[in-house]
Amino acid sequence: MRKTSRIREDIMTNSKRVGRTPSQEPVAGNGLINRRVLLGHGIAIAGAMSTAGNITGAAAEPLKDPEWSLQFGSTLPPVQIASPYEKHVVRSLSNPNGEFRNSHARTPHHLLGGTITPNGLHFSIDHSGVPNIDPAKHKLVIHGMVRQPLEFTLETLSRYPLVTRINFLECAGNSAPMFSKEPLQVTAQAIHGLVSNAEWSGVPLSVLLDEAGIDPSAKWLIAEGADAHFLDRSVPVKKAYDDALVAIYQNGEHLMPGNGYPMRLLLPGYQGNMNVKFLRRIKVVDQPAMSMFETKTYSQILPGGKTWRFHFLMEVKSFITYPSFGHSLKEPGFYAISGVAYSGTGRIAKVMVSADGGKSWGEAALQGPVHEKAFTRFVMPWRWDGQPAILQSRAWDEAGNVQPLRAEFVAARGEASNPVTTPLVFPNQHYNSLTSWGVDSKGEIKHVYA
Amino acid sequence: MRKTSRIREDIMTNSKRVGRTPSQEPVAGNGLINRRVLLGHGIAIAGAMSTAGNITGAAAEPLKDPEWSLQFGSTLPPVQIASPYEKHVVRSLSNPNGEFRNSHARTPHHLLGGTITPNGLHFSIDHSGVPNIDPAKHKLVIHGMVRQPLEFTLETLSRYPLVTRINFLECAGNSAPMFSKEPLQVTAQAIHGLVSNAEWSGVPLSVLLDEAGIDPSAKWLIAEGADAHFLDRSVPVKKAYDDALVAIYQNGEHLMPGNGYPMRLLLPGYQGNMNVKFLRRIKVVDQPAMSMFETKTYSQILPGGKTWRFHFLMEVKSFITYPSFGHSLKEPGFYAISGVAYSGTGRIAKVMVSADGGKSWGEAALQGPVHEKAFTRFVMPWRWDGQPAILQSRAWDEAGNVQPLRAEFVAARGEASNPVTTPLVFPNQHYNSLTSWGVDSKGEIKHVYA
Repeated sequence: MRKTSRIREDIMTNSKRVGRTPSQEPVAGNGLINRRVLLGHGIAIAGAMSTAGNITGAAAEPLKDPEWSLQFGSTLPPVQIASPYEKHVVRSLSNPNGEFRNSHARTPHHLLGGTITPNGLHFSIDHSGVPNIDPAKHKLVIHGMVRQPLEFTLETLSRYPLVTRINFLECAGNSAPMFSKEPLQVTAQAIHGLVSNAEWSGVPLSVLLDEAGIDPSAKWLIAEGADAHFLDRSVPVKKAYDDALVAIYQNGEHLMPGNGYPMRLLLPGYQGNMNVKFLRRIKVVDQPAMSMFETKTYSQILPGGKTWRFHFLMEVKSFITYPSFGHSLKEPGFYAISGVAYSGTGRIAKVMVSADGGKSWGEAALQGPVHEKAFTRFVMPWRWDGQPAILQSRAWDEAGNVQPLRAEFVAARGEASNPVTTPLVFPNQHYNSLTSWGVDSKGEIKHVYA
Repeated sequence: MRKTSRIREDIMTNSKRVGRTPSQEPVAGNGLINRRVLLGHGIAIAGAMSTAGNITGAAAEPLKDPEWSLQFGSTLPPVQIASPYEKHVVRSLSNPNGEFRNSHARTPHHLLGGTITPNGLHFSIDHSGVPNIDPAKHKLVIHGMVRQPLEFTLETLSRYPLVTRINFLECAGNSAPMFSKEPLQVTAQAIHGLVSNAEWSGVPLSVLLDEAGIDPSAKWLIAEGADAHFLDRSVPVKKAYDDALVAIYQNGEHLMPGNGYPMRLLLPGYQGNMNVKFLRRIKVVDQPAMSMFETKTYSQILPGGKTWRFHFLMEVKSFITYPSFGHSLKEPGFYAISGVAYSGTGRIAKVMVSADGGKSWGEAALQGPVHEKAFTRFVMPWRWDGQPAILQSRAWDEAGNVQPLRAEFVAARGEASNPVTTPLVFPNQHYNSLTSWGVDSKGEIKHVYA
């Protein structure tokens, strides 16, 4: 048979195929297979892919013409929208009726693939609704400890050389349900839906600060939004000179209204709330503002009573999106376990996957180019034998940081009685331990702790 | 002043800043500046960025509260849509009333930034409308010269390890208006809107062929779609083993209906029409189908009467998106010329930009990671002196291919009297020469040939 003597390493790595021995050897317990598995090896995989029902007769013309092939289709719209069969692929809303409080819209990770979050499905949190901003009237002012205060419009910023980067953005409160003492039976969307990943284009904040002539003794920037909340956060000047942007494009088009249209701060790897949306003022100062979101909401109280204040970095993390709660496995056989990994520190170096609740681990394949501070999709081939299994992933970043095991994490950070009904009861932030999906013998999937 | 002694090379390259001499030296005629320009060097740039109007009084609190900051904003929707102020950022339609003929929807490149084309704005061409396909009933069959014909559903394919890649997709007829003898006064959308760039995830076609057990003497695949047209094209088996995918995700979500939902062929770098949408059958054969789209539409007749048949590759190309037709420059000063470059052969190696109609050239900065067979955004700093200018870009790929100059191109490929009203009059395909935008002394921009 053609090519069957080759390992399909390119399946996983996009690298060129190389001649090696076919391999389906287990690399860890409960059915995990070497990530260089030879998928094309017909005999070995036939049973595994038995849902690919065979058709007898090689020359048969096997398909009837379906109804949609027998009529002229619908007209192309100016802006494409998803198929009616994808109606369930939407953000889940915490405040669908627009009551006068904050609102969360969560990304449906259990229904997505790849690494880019489409703009329609990027998570959003707003504390006073989404302002309808006229970009011709909106201004960004840089003032305070500068030689010369400056103001910028969307049009002005568009004249600068723009930097383009793929970065994840994560709310510090993402995954708060994981602080529950009992595992909540909800989807990856409900648990981890407050992180997304997009291509952002904008002007380096350092360029604008240099134009204004920042005072060398300045230490902090107070960034303020134009929403009714005037949401403000303090940002170290150093971050501006590392990699901060004033972003004006999100996946190629101007920002979504819920993501800060017409301009937002982008602080790659820093907690979402600091990436101030509807960016309106940056005041250059020598001490932080001690605003509500830094002294109250995002000062994380630890079990011993100490507090993480100005703890900005979103730590290395991963979670499995397929299979996960809400999916079911119809039959034993081959499945590709898949999920996303990311780190506020830099690139993902390695993701290990377990199918036996952490007793043994196999290394997953990382998909495509691995970008800094961005989603990396991992894939792990698995042959499910129909017996109970517990699926977990654990990520390492290039700086050597690793996701803590749950026992370690809970000891250091605590648990909460009910983080969903009382989300402001601490602890509720910076969860970056493992997520475990328990598969039962019927193929049903539960959220478990392991 | 802080940091002003450093070149802001990271603006362009995302690389770490390095200590070098500030630089705004010209690199080519008519105001092109070294791409490592020190933007933050206040004195040198102040005039250039005069639209960033200065505010006197460093301690002033400079902004009045706009109306949208004084009220609670709108409710987050399940799927985000663009701001009402972005209503003009849509695809242009060739058949908006759904007449029984083909339809084109073009990407508004002159209004976009970065490299990803958002799914709503990805170009689409359909010959019999967009079928409304039920993914639970849609099947892909691989048959013909195989050991065992197989069928796959969206659900089956989802169990495979998926490859994720960013790739451009371009219609062979993209840029057909450039064959006009006179430059047409239309936007980059109207000229080049039949190319887009997205992150695609799917199963390598080679994996599926190996599962079916492809006959070693097979040379071609006939790929057929489930639209009423049953659009079919012949694809060399070799391409399947190079990098072809059966794609099921586009920028993270399932494919848009106009882009082949629920599955399409993706042949990176090959003309759009071959990337068969609504993929339904792949027949493995030993000779091509000689289907309408390969023998008629996409067999390009050359001036001497010879024909390019089975000329699949989309050649190296670039065009400036900002500033371009439809924009106007309000005043002399600093602008970042920006555009996209891509090649069906591989990575972009270099983009040169001219502001004097090709008399002199400066090297543009390439933004972000440069992916294979994908859009790369280039940026060129420019100080416009208020005099007429002609802006052009020219790209090279890593294999050394270069965009031909217009005179060379026309000599080899010919011109057409009116490629818009009579699009099937040859030549109308594979235009990859330069695009020139003429700026007059008022800052108005025309499409010119130079």
